[in-house]
Amino acid sequence: MKRVMLVVAYDGTGYHGWQAQPGHTTIEGVLNEKLSALLQEEITVIGASRTDAGVHSYGNVAVFDTNTRIPAEKLSYALNQRLPGDIVVQRSCEVAPDFHPRHCESRKTYEYRIWNSTFPMPARRLDTFFYHRPLDLEAMQRAAELLVGEYDFKSFCAAGTAVKTTVRRIYSLSVEQQKELITIRVCGNGFLYNMVRILAGTLIQVGSGERRPEELADILAAKDRSAAGPTAPAHGLTMIGIKFSS
Amino acid sequence: MKRVMLVVAYDGTGYHGWQAQPGHTTIEGVLNEKLSALLQEEITVIGASRTDAGVHSYGNVAVFDTNTRIPAEKLSYALNQRLPGDIVVQRSCEVAPDFHPRHCESRKTYEYRIWNSTFPMPARRLDTFFYHRPLDLEAMQRAAELLVGEYDFKSFCAAGTAVKTTVRRIYSLSVEQQKELITIRVCGNGFLYNMVRILAGTLIQVGSGERRPEELADILAAKDRSAAGPTAPAHGLTMIGIKFSS
Repeated sequence: MKRVMLVVAYDGTGYHGWQAQPGHTTIEGVLNEKLSALLQEEITVIGASRTDAGVHSYGNVAVFDTNTRIPAEKLSYALNQRLPGDIVVQRSCEVAPDFHPRHCESRKTYEYRIWNSTFPMPARRLDTFFYHRPLDLEAMQRAAELLVGEYDFKSFCAAGTAVKTTVRRIYSLSVEQQKELITIRVCGNGFLYNMVRILAGTLIQVGSGERRPEELADILAAKDRSAAGPTAPAHGLTMIGIKFSS
Repeated sequence: MKRVMLVVAYDGTGYHGWQAQPGHTTIEGVLNEKLSALLQEEITVIGASRTDAGVHSYGNVAVFDTNTRIPAEKLSYALNQRLPGDIVVQRSCEVAPDFHPRHCESRKTYEYRIWNSTFPMPARRLDTFFYHRPLDLEAMQRAAELLVGEYDFKSFCAAGTAVKTTVRRIYSLSVEQQKELITIRVCGNGFLYNMVRILAGTLIQVGSGERRPEELADILAAKDRSAAGPTAPAHGLTMIGIKFSS
């Protein structure tokens, strides 16, 4: 028996998110099905980030246990032969038998992409959120700076979520623009439910002038979901990758 | 009667290219149909770049004549209400009655995007060409430099194409890399049939070591399609925009 780690990229457009659900096509469900067929044993993957419907991934992580003799590094090639084109394993390797992608220290990076123009851009309509009002990049950057560090992010957590603690650390949070494309990139030791999308929705309010950058400090202090901005739509969000502490 | 110019963006994935063809869904066909319904008169657009099936656009140009009283600038809004999500008019304005987007001097810009990694990236599988062998960016850049200027690009024109002259001017041709994404960006006064895709296919051969950068001079001198590399796949190509000389 060995534990194998997969780095899983997907276009989330056609899926009801990561988590297996009866009657819905999910990333986890497809991986379980294709791995079980490939390895001829019942496989259940454990995902690092259980992304919502419509969210994309360049480098989500999943682990599973298997008795196969196929070397872990070769599994990506064999599995990609069976997977649909919108799910592609980027890498596979063996990990320690007790490695759990949600119960160990890690740095997760997400990008939230905004297409900021008068009209949407068709070729980017599935991986960016179209927003037509002009956004003040500098104001968004000043607001973003106030969120870097260890804070109680309760205001940025979907209401009604049960977690032990809402304290998280953001290592970096940048807002960059390339013509019409604005990219919010955030790296942290973990994110609460909908946290990145609420951060994005709040930074968009700052960019459009609805809020001042300085208000971010008050929003954090409120520890109340209703103090922050709306949850930005899922399809603008991409899970970029995860680094685990060794 | 006035002549209106549209800047047309599209995701080419679902279309048999620009040009109207019986029995196929094309960009031109959809524009003609939706404009005719909107304006209650028979409309026929003239396109600047008749892109192939699968090619995308951020800023292709079309013109048409109409008797409507709707101001030209407002037509984009009205038309986008009727267009599907994968075709969006970015701008509309009135132009001179004799303005023809293919019979006047212009600078066209295209991008050819390559996803250069071991495995394809699902969220970018429709607007980049996946190529798994490592590419030498510097070699591609040196080769690209040799194509800037006015030359007979006959070697880079699909065989059997009837044109008066195969001489074209390339104003700039850059090859840039952002992690796995390599972007070839070319600006010229016009492009022969399949020219950008053959340029891309040849530069990929240089990047992979199959050809030396210096060979580009010999390929130009040969004036023979078989001297150049293969035609890179359509879905990696995006028509970025057109600037007309006033």
